[in-house]
Amino acid sequence: MRLTRHLKPSIRHLTSTVSHDYEFMSYMVNKAKSINKALDEAIPLCEPVVKIREAMRYTLLSGGKRVRPMLCLAACVLVGGQESTAMPAACAVEMIHASSLIQDDLPCMDDDSLRRGKPTNHKVYGEDIAVLTTDALIALAIKKLATSTSLGVPPEKVLLAVVEMAKAVGTEGLVAGQAADLAGEGMSLKEDVAGLEHLEFIHIHKTAALLEAATVTGAIMGGGSDGEIERLRRYARCIGLMFQVVDDVLDVTKSSHELGKTAGKDIIAGKLTYPKVMGVEKSREYAEELNREAQEHLQGFDSDKVAPLLSLADYIVNRQN
Amino acid sequence: MRLTRHLKPSIRHLTSTVSHDYEFMSYMVNKAKSINKALDEAIPLCEPVVKIREAMRYTLLSGGKRVRPMLCLAACVLVGGQESTAMPAACAVEMIHASSLIQDDLPCMDDDSLRRGKPTNHKVYGEDIAVLTTDALIALAIKKLATSTSLGVPPEKVLLAVVEMAKAVGTEGLVAGQAADLAGEGMSLKEDVAGLEHLEFIHIHKTAALLEAATVTGAIMGGGSDGEIERLRRYARCIGLMFQVVDDVLDVTKSSHELGKTAGKDIIAGKLTYPKVMGVEKSREYAEELNREAQEHLQGFDSDKVAPLLSLADYIVNRQN
Repeated sequence: MRLTRHLKPSIRHLTSTVSHDYEFMSYMVNKAKSINKALDEAIPLCEPVVKIREAMRYTLLSGGKRVRPMLCLAACVLVGGQESTAMPAACAVEMIHASSLIQDDLPCMDDDSLRRGKPTNHKVYGEDIAVLTTDALIALAIKKLATSTSLGVPPEKVLLAVVEMAKAVGTEGLVAGQAADLAGEGMSLKEDVAGLEHLEFIHIHKTAALLEAATVTGAIMGGGSDGEIERLRRYARCIGLMFQVVDDVLDVTKSSHELGKTAGKDIIAGKLTYPKVMGVEKSREYAEELNREAQEHLQGFDSDKVAPLLSLADYIVNRQN
Repeated sequence: MRLTRHLKPSIRHLTSTVSHDYEFMSYMVNKAKSINKALDEAIPLCEPVVKIREAMRYTLLSGGKRVRPMLCLAACVLVGGQESTAMPAACAVEMIHASSLIQDDLPCMDDDSLRRGKPTNHKVYGEDIAVLTTDALIALAIKKLATSTSLGVPPEKVLLAVVEMAKAVGTEGLVAGQAADLAGEGMSLKEDVAGLEHLEFIHIHKTAALLEAATVTGAIMGGGSDGEIERLRRYARCIGLMFQVVDDVLDVTKSSHELGKTAGKDIIAGKLTYPKVMGVEKSREYAEELNREAQEHLQGFDSDKVAPLLSLADYIVNRQN
């Protein structure tokens, strides 16, 4: 839950923190635009079940930096594919993400009333519709992805991508992460090696799994070799975990004003975090180490094409909110 | 919700109502056995996320006649395939069905405490785990189906089956049916043509769509031609609707004792039903008409291989509880 909540400093904040990389900044804005357009077109507001479609659009089109679909498109281009070939997969991964946001906010989960400054899905449409909307988004994601053959991707490749996405949703991905997170809540988690293992289990499943699926499906759609796909998978795992480490550090080192949201939330909730387990300094070092490892996995790829993925990793580790 | 609740007269009831067809009876028992075995093996009870796996197994393995997987297997054999080739699809469709049962029982939906005489999933595992379990079942269903290529099914066929299943889950299937059902609750629905259209919309999406996906994916896995698949699709639509018509008639013509559950539930709930819209006699005629139509779609197939599908249709229309 924390990740999804923390993934949304608005794009304008990027200018101050990554001002040295104006090119990356405009890259992100441009990609977000084309992704938003594709998502908008994927769910026309029509009969039947207009209400479900409204609820799907409400969360899916309510902003967000589109980090996951960007990873998907960039990975596709990196291995030599056309960006458009990966667009269905990019949309699919963002639909899965939106579904998980709606679910995390439900009364039986985090019971949140606000997301991205707007009432949460179930507050607007009711809990019953919100629950149906999560299914509708997962189903549409799979359908979108499975029909990618129309763009010339070989069926066996599309199937690999479908399996990858299904894994990211179920007991090998989001479901496992959320279940572990729920199991940890209210428990006095140990701040030791066992605690760290539990923490990493949560983040690898709840955060990294979908970033991995995004990157890997993009590489599959682009026709990447097994070796290329494997390196991109490792890159994605590193940045998924890194994202969470940075997030935890910001929560204890920044003010609410700087973060643009309540600081110290994790401490108040008694959550196990990286600073709690290894201290702030060691957490920062760990994030840097994960970034170095992520960048290493990208060595040997075309230097122009690899720039967005390198910049994305740098952006995540250097962000101040 | 009504369908899933009414689909469970225990198999022993079959002997009295379809005693003329002992062969079909043992066919059903045998198929249910092999399907239960495959479902059991599909979700080993192991780390991590044991609790989710327990919750998945709790509903998936709690009985039920396995009508949907049977349709899937029978359709596969009918078009000349090996039954084992359709087993992953058969398991997938039952997982989707189990997911919809858990969801229908949630406090924000029907708020049911009992299903098949046992406490509902969320009563045993909590609402949060129940919600995650629905996702886990859908994800596993898609993964199972998408890896059917290991049984020699061509990838392009498997993809067609994946799309079919995704459609049955989302806004073209279960989600649409449940949304329409929710929209109708508490409304004073008109007992006229518009009412009948609303009623048929619910049942086509909530019941027939998954029976259709079961049958069609079976036919796809068996290597059926487009023409064969289309005829089986029409057969499945007929029996899906027929099931609901018969269900509505039984609700007003049988005693609770005869049904083995509370009779007259639909009237008490103020639900729109076929007898309410067209009267009991016309409803019975409509069910017979749907059965005739279903059987017509099966003409021309091998008479031995088609027997299970014909018997299944007869069983549905003749059942007394």
